[in-house]
Amino acid sequence: MTDSAFLRACRGEPVPHTPVWFMRQAGRSLPEYRAVRANVPMLASCRTPELVVEITLQPLRRYGVDAAVLFSDIVVPLQAVGVGLDIVAGVGPVIEEPVRRAADLARLRPLTPDDVPDVSASVTALVDELGGTPLIGFAGAPFTLASYLVEGGPSRNHERTKALMYGEPATWHALLDRLADIALGFLQVQVAAGAAAVQLFDSWAGVLSAADYRRYVLPHSAKVLGGLAGGGVVPRIHFGVGTGELLGLLAEAGADVVGVDWRVPLDAAAGRVGPGRALQGNLDPAVLFAPWGAVAAKAREVLAAGKAADGHIFNLGHGVLPDTDPRVLERLVELVHAESAR
Amino acid sequence: MTDSAFLRACRGEPVPHTPVWFMRQAGRSLPEYRAVRANVPMLASCRTPELVVEITLQPLRRYGVDAAVLFSDIVVPLQAVGVGLDIVAGVGPVIEEPVRRAADLARLRPLTPDDVPDVSASVTALVDELGGTPLIGFAGAPFTLASYLVEGGPSRNHERTKALMYGEPATWHALLDRLADIALGFLQVQVAAGAAAVQLFDSWAGVLSAADYRRYVLPHSAKVLGGLAGGGVVPRIHFGVGTGELLGLLAEAGADVVGVDWRVPLDAAAGRVGPGRALQGNLDPAVLFAPWGAVAAKAREVLAAGKAADGHIFNLGHGVLPDTDPRVLERLVELVHAESAR
Repeated sequence: MTDSAFLRACRGEPVPHTPVWFMRQAGRSLPEYRAVRANVPMLASCRTPELVVEITLQPLRRYGVDAAVLFSDIVVPLQAVGVGLDIVAGVGPVIEEPVRRAADLARLRPLTPDDVPDVSASVTALVDELGGTPLIGFAGAPFTLASYLVEGGPSRNHERTKALMYGEPATWHALLDRLADIALGFLQVQVAAGAAAVQLFDSWAGVLSAADYRRYVLPHSAKVLGGLAGGGVVPRIHFGVGTGELLGLLAEAGADVVGVDWRVPLDAAAGRVGPGRALQGNLDPAVLFAPWGAVAAKAREVLAAGKAADGHIFNLGHGVLPDTDPRVLERLVELVHAESAR
Repeated sequence: MTDSAFLRACRGEPVPHTPVWFMRQAGRSLPEYRAVRANVPMLASCRTPELVVEITLQPLRRYGVDAAVLFSDIVVPLQAVGVGLDIVAGVGPVIEEPVRRAADLARLRPLTPDDVPDVSASVTALVDELGGTPLIGFAGAPFTLASYLVEGGPSRNHERTKALMYGEPATWHALLDRLADIALGFLQVQVAAGAAAVQLFDSWAGVLSAADYRRYVLPHSAKVLGGLAGGGVVPRIHFGVGTGELLGLLAEAGADVVGVDWRVPLDAAAGRVGPGRALQGNLDPAVLFAPWGAVAAKAREVLAAGKAADGHIFNLGHGVLPDTDPRVLERLVELVHAESAR
């Protein structure tokens, strides 16, 4: 498996073809996913190994993707350490008691393997089922977790989060330090159970300027990514949407692979990230709604620009949109493999 | 009035103090606005001169801002040429019959002054009331108008818009050409009635890569901005949120002033926009929710970075958020004026 195209590309080594997987490849775009989830709430499905294994494998059966990604949710580790929350359909995560004062931090203890035996079981079973296909572990980054906790749910403008960050920097850094421990613990569980790579997903980091990201966020994401370095290291992917201004800092935080959204061409991104790091991306998921000829042309542009990187993993620039036609993703995998084969 | 700090800054001339106004300064953050709008639907309020005048003047009475901005909405000119639509509270614009085929374009005729006598009347009355304070006219840019028309309302991912853009480029360009005529006609009415400057607002342009913006959008925004050039020219401000990758192209489209959101510091933006163009921005509107000391520190950073530009108009990096405390904006205007005074 260490010789798989995906892991070779993460390390910047020559590959037989450009590896490809899709963020949110397991999800609502698949009818078999909607069938399995019909009567199961989101968090329950994330905590039930049989369902996690089934949902994680569903896209592998359809597409010849080069990696699986653990089916989970950004808030799972928060729930695991005792934060009262739910994922409400059509809304997103809802936090029972938002975190807004230093006194609230006591509710955020480190995550241990005993908090998520189901996750260990899911990963172990998946690694067994997957054979030579690598499984990517997954966690939300401290800033994105903080935004959910402080706002109490999804937020368009992150007013309360930023008010805390700018107004009470000591509380802010203490909060992000605790969230770094939780995210790191969650990823360590997955790596210990056999995940071959991890992706740290900082969904909302793109709402910050580079100077603020460096000051208020980078040290904490670096703690997560740095905590995974050392013997038996797995490649670390670091991604956030709308992070064109931050690409160099996402790398600096300790990424082996930087995920790029569609706003920045991969050749430009390679310059911002610097040498020795691979890139992941970056076809606009909305392009998949155009006729196939337009999809193919855009995919070829991504492959061409990806040659500038020290390793390229083809992906979308953000998650698969729910109304995406799975047959288009199937053709896209075939195109990426065929046109990049040496 | 041509000697006002605002217009001098637009032209890159020396100013007695850095001028300041706020996008969406007239709006839900003001209790007197909520009172006036209590029983009046959004579109009706935009089409009633007495209300437009009152709402446009409300922030002038509170804050010592250096410019007024016409109270209107991006979809007003679409309604004026006969597109069936409404603005639904909590949702945004809803288009009765979305535009998705070449045959739909016939519904989009050019806008003439006779379509918006109320807008002419509002601007004329405002210019009279405002005395020496400049009034900024306002229109949505072709891409943003197209997104509403094609999607049928606000959209997170703009799938249908991009599918049309990539899949049927001839229809796309014909659509944007018609929308350019409508936006230009709407701005010409405002300038003819006495608006001292205009802002072309491309809310969603930041969802495009630079290459796609250049190919599919820039020629049409250039038609709008270019149509306002010539004798008796007024300064043209061009703004979209999340447009760090596009700043040079927003300038190239024909802007005298480029609006910048908070993700890119103004000194970096000045380099991307090039010499001879002023900048507008760019305090993060979410910062206003932090304690005053943090607001003041951030505002000083904006003022310092703005010195790199050939003219700086202080503004937020996006519109005033509804829960903003008006007293903070009041203090902010005082700070900008006091600290920039020569």
